[in-house]
Amino acid sequence: MLLEQLQANDRSDAYPFHMPGHKRRMELGTDAYHLDITEIDGFDNLHHAQGILKEEQARYADYIGVNRSFFLVNGSTCGILAAISAAVPRGGKLLMARNSHKAAYHALFLRQLRAHYLYPCITGFDIQGAISPDQVKKALEDDPEIAAVYVTSPTYDGVVSDVKAIADLVHEHGKTLIVDEAHGAHFGFHPAFPPSAAGCGADVVIQSVHKTLPAFTQSAVMHLCSDRISADVLEQFLDIYESSSPSYVLMAGISRLVPFLQSEGAARFSELAKNLEQFYEKTKKLSCLHVIREEDLSRSEAFLRDPSKILISTKNCNINGRQLYERLLEEFHLQLEMYSGEYVTALCSLMDQAEGFERLADALIAIDAAIYRLSKEDQPFVARMYREREQVCSIADAMEQETEALPWQKAEGRISGEYVYLYPPGIPILVPGERIDARVICDIEEIRARGMLPEGLRDMQARSIHVISFYNNCID
Amino acid sequence: MLLEQLQANDRSDAYPFHMPGHKRRMELGTDAYHLDITEIDGFDNLHHAQGILKEEQARYADYIGVNRSFFLVNGSTCGILAAISAAVPRGGKLLMARNSHKAAYHALFLRQLRAHYLYPCITGFDIQGAISPDQVKKALEDDPEIAAVYVTSPTYDGVVSDVKAIADLVHEHGKTLIVDEAHGAHFGFHPAFPPSAAGCGADVVIQSVHKTLPAFTQSAVMHLCSDRISADVLEQFLDIYESSSPSYVLMAGISRLVPFLQSEGAARFSELAKNLEQFYEKTKKLSCLHVIREEDLSRSEAFLRDPSKILISTKNCNINGRQLYERLLEEFHLQLEMYSGEYVTALCSLMDQAEGFERLADALIAIDAAIYRLSKEDQPFVARMYREREQVCSIADAMEQETEALPWQKAEGRISGEYVYLYPPGIPILVPGERIDARVICDIEEIRARGMLPEGLRDMQARSIHVISFYNNCID
Repeated sequence: MLLEQLQANDRSDAYPFHMPGHKRRMELGTDAYHLDITEIDGFDNLHHAQGILKEEQARYADYIGVNRSFFLVNGSTCGILAAISAAVPRGGKLLMARNSHKAAYHALFLRQLRAHYLYPCITGFDIQGAISPDQVKKALEDDPEIAAVYVTSPTYDGVVSDVKAIADLVHEHGKTLIVDEAHGAHFGFHPAFPPSAAGCGADVVIQSVHKTLPAFTQSAVMHLCSDRISADVLEQFLDIYESSSPSYVLMAGISRLVPFLQSEGAARFSELAKNLEQFYEKTKKLSCLHVIREEDLSRSEAFLRDPSKILISTKNCNINGRQLYERLLEEFHLQLEMYSGEYVTALCSLMDQAEGFERLADALIAIDAAIYRLSKEDQPFVARMYREREQVCSIADAMEQETEALPWQKAEGRISGEYVYLYPPGIPILVPGERIDARVICDIEEIRARGMLPEGLRDMQARSIHVISFYNNCID
Repeated sequence: MLLEQLQANDRSDAYPFHMPGHKRRMELGTDAYHLDITEIDGFDNLHHAQGILKEEQARYADYIGVNRSFFLVNGSTCGILAAISAAVPRGGKLLMARNSHKAAYHALFLRQLRAHYLYPCITGFDIQGAISPDQVKKALEDDPEIAAVYVTSPTYDGVVSDVKAIADLVHEHGKTLIVDEAHGAHFGFHPAFPPSAAGCGADVVIQSVHKTLPAFTQSAVMHLCSDRISADVLEQFLDIYESSSPSYVLMAGISRLVPFLQSEGAARFSELAKNLEQFYEKTKKLSCLHVIREEDLSRSEAFLRDPSKILISTKNCNINGRQLYERLLEEFHLQLEMYSGEYVTALCSLMDQAEGFERLADALIAIDAAIYRLSKEDQPFVARMYREREQVCSIADAMEQETEALPWQKAEGRISGEYVYLYPPGIPILVPGERIDARVICDIEEIRARGMLPEGLRDMQARSIHVISFYNNCID
């Protein structure tokens, strides 16, 4: 049973280099069922807050320095849906990075929006870089239909775009900027970590407090930082996308973050910074594996990197990301967040302990000594998958067509009726309405060959894809 | 702080005659933070379930006897949105009861659906009755555009429609039936309670397991009971409306229900039935207050009532619903679920104890002895508010118009740009696109005079309403 398996996991000695950011080291102090109520007297109503929930949200907003903060019990998902829905009229156009979380594509679908995509640069080590202010500037100048701009910063890999420069450009054009800062709820509190998007001038910022702060999975906060988007409209959309029976356990977990950060934040962030510095220093001596540093990525493009997302590259090694991930788990009881083609990701938070960093560094040094470098220089491959593709029709239009399932090899030239993504991170390689070209078919084969399973497809084994029937007839 | 206030509430002696159905008497046994993880190895992925979550959902489906069960961590809200989205094409038409939860209206908005409304009969005691098979039959015969039918059964007041007869009619017309059984997750397990909608032939059934079963607030299950709606399409919409970081604490709470019901269900349901029988018997002697029974309501229309929703009427008494609710809370420490104009609601579950029923019956007898009957026979008023209204345009169209705020007295004849509802239960009195007539203005005044606050309006004090600017110009 799931509950028993979760209890067993709690008793194991596996160290959690993954979300949630509380690292199982917070305490409610009371059995969760005993705290789990509904909107009874004295406990307010999240969707019509006038009492304690209004006060708690106002305290959060004051602490962050924004106009309004909204507690989200359906994760960043509902914040992304609400922010895009509020910022762009139905049928309008959104300027967005193509490496966005699937929730952004779902907002396009629900509101029949058109997308103007920006493709991030690809850096070495298989990593997607930042969205540059120049890209945003050019798009805003070329395409006056754009109503709002949506950027993910930091990315799942910790790449931070220049939100301040982007915000200035967006505002010069009279548009609004939404920043998906799901992976950066810990920004702005300590100089070792990047500044927050709210502090850089974004209009709406969505933060998953469960990812890098010590809150429960599925909890998030949305910040409204300007008057460019109506708070009323934002609330209307939250009312639509969020449960009408919000969990008080999740809300209690969000609301205690401010007093926690006020009392313990400074010391814990300093300790995290120190632990990270020592870890990055200690792992400099690896000869096959490579712990990715800001300077590895920022050669051509200027961007910051969040050091709390530790990426360990297996590039040119005789093991791949999955093999490294499995060895860390099985031999060293270190549970990492994810593996990609040629790297693994360890997520850290202010709840981590020195012991974890020592175990991880020691494990990497041990594995490093037992592997060797390949002479052939492989190309990184996962980042390549997020290629520029032909958009034949909008997501909303594509989702309403008749489709048929085809094996990948027979789908070339057809239009996708489905999403294809790797989870994590849940960024679509292909979205409905895009042309299936020969390269994506090779890429999917390569993903499968490397032991990863693409998701989003009705075929759980990802051997076939639903393509649009009708458009094909037209094309023929 | 919210957490401290929840802990204080747990220590109080107030008896919970409200949701959630676990009545704070279940135990996780481990601090919730220690069980709260993400999709690490061995713990599957709710949106691509192939391991333990697939098994747990399959076990639930087997236990209920349906094709598929989907665990929902965004409450019944996301199930209602997904089911309606999957059953009706964009722009299509839904036959629905006008006393539906606001999530159903939100689905109309998101998918630009048109509604064909059915108005339930109004019974004595201020209660809305069932949707009759005859109403459904007539609508299906008159309106061939209807793609699917959506019925709430039981209602928040415990009124159960004849789902079997309705399902047969709907299927004869080749349509699909969605039943919002949010308040009936405990149906079908014991003869003292009504049969389940899944057992009566509905195609999709949404149950809030937190309402009447012992699960966490915000957790629900959706059952797919036939092949008339595609499981793939249903899952696609769940993927849109539900968090991509689902809470393992919420999921653990859902998945333990089956073993709990298997081992303890029969004994606990029998005890609940016995306690309810004694309560209804003991309160027969009330002379001013009246505990509503099935036979009070079912005179003209045939429907069942769920006895676990105890409704206590103050009709023709010198106190109103709110006053009774407050006396029960302040003098007797009995926290009821809600008050309406002339009744209060106590929600019971299989976790209730004999002590609670005794305290409630004794309190009612004591209050009954201290109040008196009014000679004048008042009309019940809340049920009257769900009147048939002129639909000027669709919700989606109305929500995209320019609006202006007007005090209620100046809004007569204008078209609403907002929802107005009482929460609980969250059933709209007015929806965007409906004409504001003189009666609704009187009704809102009466609601406010009785100490209740209508919600959904941007004006938190409900003194004004946003009306559509443009349509007014046309009408002039």
